[in-house]
Amino acid sequence: MRNTARWAAALTLTAASVLGPLAGAALATPLPTPASLYAPSDLVMTLGHGESAALVTPQRAVTLTCAPTASGTHPSAAEACAELRAAGGDLNALTARSGALCTKAYDPVVVTVNGVWQGKRVAYERTFSNECMKGSYGRSLFAF
Amino acid sequence: MRNTARWAAALTLTAASVLGPLAGAALATPLPTPASLYAPSDLVMTLGHGESAALVTPQRAVTLTCAPTASGTHPSAAEACAELRAAGGDLNALTARSGALCTKAYDPVVVTVNGVWQGKRVAYERTFSNECMKGSYGRSLFAF
Repeated sequence: MRNTARWAAALTLTAASVLGPLAGAALATPLPTPASLYAPSDLVMTLGHGESAALVTPQRAVTLTCAPTASGTHPSAAEACAELRAAGGDLNALTARSGALCTKAYDPVVVTVNGVWQGKRVAYERTFSNECMKGSYGRSLFAF
Repeated sequence: MRNTARWAAALTLTAASVLGPLAGAALATPLPTPASLYAPSDLVMTLGHGESAALVTPQRAVTLTCAPTASGTHPSAAEACAELRAAGGDLNALTARSGALCTKAYDPVVVTVNGVWQGKRVAYERTFSNECMKGSYGRSLFAF
């Protein structure tokens, strides 16, 4: 009996050491494809002149991918990803830079961000009273 | 007076030849950046296992840019853009290939497409009863 128990323990240990890394990988990623070894971070951003995205034709649109590396048609993808990362992906946490000087002229621009940030869906819309105000939020994220 | 008129005409012509190209560019595009010389076509596509995008964690996400050239993290961006173009950008117009053999096993996958197609906003969601059914729609658009 004691011998059997020892064998069982040895077998369990062997199984754990062989299957352990596989089980770990399977838990971390639901899909076994290489593309899903990281949580996706793919966004599309639009910019239009007006108050609400629903009423405005998007004049510009860019894509931004932040995993595994920064890429996309965003003119400064790496900086934009760094900014998003610094904000923990929370676009509402982005604040206006202190010292930005903008007029109060009302010529609204609306920015949308849609897609996925680190595996979580993003659907964001923000209206700025003018282009300068938009530029005062973040550094390069909205500069497209 | 005649001389003055000649001078004025010469000046006008010079001004036109110098400012002409600039004015032309400004008329063609509300914004003077080169990126807005064409209508934007930038999309982000996600895939999740479940019935509704609102309830499902996106397991994969890719970006797809179709203007000015096909690019993005979509594995076959050029083909995907060609398919979208053939469908006139109408994702609902995509139909299942005849001859695709799929089981009726119910293991739903949900695909979303968001962003801009030729300057128009796109917000699309479609649920397929299983992966095979998803693959039967289009050729490479949903193959990511």
